[in-house]
Formats: sequence, structure tokens, C-alpha cells
Amino acid sequence: MRKLYHYWLCPFSRKIRLLLSEKKLSFETVAIKPWDIPSSFFSLNPEGMPPVLIDDDGKNIANAYPITEYLEEVYFEPSYLGKTSAQRAETRRLIIWCDEKFNAEVTHNLVYEKVLRRKMGQGGPDSATIRIGNAHIHDHLEYVSWLCDRRNWLAGDAFSLADISAAAHFSCIDYLGDVPWDKHPVAKLWYARVKSRPSFRDILADVVPGLSPSPHYTNLDF
Amino acid sequence: MRKLYHYWLCPFSRKIRLLLSEKKLSFETVAIKPWDIPSSFFSLNPEGMPPVLIDDDGKNIANAYPITEYLEEVYFEPSYLGKTSAQRAETRRLIIWCDEKFNAEVTHNLVYEKVLRRKMGQGGPDSATIRIGNAHIHDHLEYVSWLCDRRNWLAGDAFSLADISAAAHFSCIDYLGDVPWDKHPVAKLWYARVKSRPSFRDILADVVPGLSPSPHYTNLDF
Repeated sequence: MRKLYHYWLCPFSRKIRLLLSEKKLSFETVAIKPWDIPSSFFSLNPEGMPPVLIDDDGKNIANAYPITEYLEEVYFEPSYLGKTSAQRAETRRLIIWCDEKFNAEVTHNLVYEKVLRRKMGQGGPDSATIRIGNAHIHDHLEYVSWLCDRRNWLAGDAFSLADISAAAHFSCIDYLGDVPWDKHPVAKLWYARVKSRPSFRDILADVVPGLSPSPHYTNLDF
Repeated sequence: MRKLYHYWLCPFSRKIRLLLSEKKLSFETVAIKPWDIPSSFFSLNPEGMPPVLIDDDGKNIANAYPITEYLEEVYFEPSYLGKTSAQRAETRRLIIWCDEKFNAEVTHNLVYEKVLRRKMGQGGPDSATIRIGNAHIHDHLEYVSWLCDRRNWLAGDAFSLADISAAAHFSCIDYLGDVPWDKHPVAKLWYARVKSRPSFRDILADVVPGLSPSPHYTNLDF
């Protein structure tokens, strides 16, 4: 059985869970706590971080970018990158926008500060950093709205890894109740459409040990 | 004529220059200064940063990850990702190691602090940050040495985008004279092999306006 090492509030792990589900590839999950990595895990990923995929044939693929491209290469139908090289470039531009810019400006500033910092023995949450995350999230919600005003989905006509990547990040922050959806109705409508996809059910069923989700986290009509 | 928007000390731009040269795809360069981005450039890349490739047919591809994958898809022979899905996953694991971990721990801490911070109007260099970069570079040189003790090139038997990505980062720092090569003879030997490739000539000929390269930067026998 295919196996995914993940952490619940890791947006990179969530992206792979969503992509596997969209592609109807069954898998079991093994939770990895970033503050308590078993030494054996470093042989699966020398960086010592989820996600890591062990495919059915035992192939060991570490990190979101290699896993995403691997799944698109090996299980290429349906594709979530796009059909033309120009479309794939646009999808990948938005993937990296999520995984670098959004992650650095928002996800890391909120999820790491609020949930992980203390567990990793690095002191309490820094309120200035949290304020930076809360400020920047508006820019990204505006960009999602701007794209949705012009396109059916974030990267174009079709639901793609751009939507999956963005939703993976937003869902982690939404778990904490920190996405100001009501100030961004167009982005909220986009997220409601993503949230209602069958691939998202498993994400909405997440319960992080010791941390309850925000009241509207599972609600499709939030 | 194919056109690449780049900045001399941007490791992501250098990676694309190297990949284009390795694939023998001719191109002209347009220098973009990160502290003085023309407003017209945002229509080429909404993030407003190099690299951006305009291909022969006018296709506009922004950011290193989309450009790299685009060049591998469209100009697939010779491939610098690898022949099997497992090899490609390993190459991509090392690409992301360079572009996230190495960049965050070393390149950004040295190149941004020493060269860009003041130009971007964000004050003078922070010596504590530079010390962090100088400390972390040893970990990465050790990892390069560890890989070279076990493999012909970083990702396996063949020269690949793992070598190109790592060399793109090291070359920016080497321009400043901040790579402690003499403490890491195995990594130095690897870099000397990369440096002697024809694709590297153009990188070694770089002269950043107002900033001379370190004395050994161009020297193949450093």
C-alpha cells in the first residue's frame, strides 16, 4: 500500500494528500511531528521533514516538488498541471507563488508561530511575526480574487495544482480560524468550491492532537 | 532571439543561464536590478523578480522552477533531470535543497545582506545575519562532499540540474569571496569540475557594476 508521511498542518503534505485523492490513488498516512522526528526518518528524507511518499513499488520520493512532478509523470491522467507547455508554466508559477511567497509571508508566520515554535523548543509565539502574517494574508486573498475575476480557476479554465497548492495553505490557516474570508467574498467563493470537492473531505476531517479546528473549518457553507 | 531577464548575483537566474548554455540554446540577456524594477516588468512576472524567459516563439515563462521544467519538457534532449522517474525525483530533491534550504541559510544571508540590502533602501548589512550565512555554508559544503564521496556528480552518475543549481548558488557567494573552499577539498574538486565546463564561461565573465569579483573567482585552478 502506498504510504505518505505527513504532518497535519504542513501545507506541503496537504498538497500531496489532495493530489493523490484527486488522482484516485489510494494511500495510508503516517503522521510525523516536526518537533520529534524519529532518527529513522532521515533515511527517507535527509532534510528530516514531511512529506515523503513511498509508492506501491517501494520508490521513496521526498519533498513536495519532487513528489508532485513524480505523480504527474507516472500517473499522468488526469493531469493537474495542464495540457500545454504554456499552461503548465502558468500552473507552476502559481505553485511556487504559494509555496515560497505565500508560505514565507503568511503560512510560516502564523502556523509556525502559533503551533510549532513552542513545541520545537524555540520559545513562545512572537506577536510581531503573527501581525506580519495577518497583514500579508490580505494581499494573497486579493490576488486570488483578482485571478478568479479573470479565470474559472486560479491557473485557467481547469482546476489545477495552483488551486490545490493555494487551498493547502489556506486550509492550514483556516484550521486556526485566521483567514478573514468575509473581507474577500470572491476568494471565499473560490475556497467554497475547492472545499466541496471529494478530495477535500479527508482534509476537513483532520483533527490535530491537542488543537481543535476553528468552528467553521469543516462547514461547507461558512 | 530568446531573451532572459536576469540579475547577475541571482542564483535562480544563473541556474537558467547555465541550463540554456548546457542545452546549447542561444539567448540574449537583459539585466534587471532588484532595487529598481521597471513597472513594465510586472507584466512579465507579477512577482517582479528575475528570472523571466521569453522563448523564441514569444512564450513568457516566469521564475526558475517553471522555466527549468519548461526547458526540460520542450528541449528535452539532453535531459538534466535524469532518465528514470526515481533519478528525476533525486535530482529535484537536490534542486529544492539548493533553492530553499541553501538559499535561506546561506545565499540570502550573504548576497542580500552584503550587496542588496542597502541598494533596496533597507539599511546597512546586518553582521549577525552574515555570521549565520558564514556558519551554515560549512554544512552545505560538507553535504556536497558527502554526496561526491558516493557519486560521480551530486545526483548520481550524470551531471545534472542538481550540480547546476548548487553551482549557481556557490558561484554567487564565490563572487564575493566567501566560500571557504580550502576547508572542504572534496567540494572544491567538484566545483572545479563544474567551473571548467563550457557553460560556465559566461558566468565567470560576469562583472557586476560597481562590485569586482574576488581574485580567484575566474581562476579554474583556485
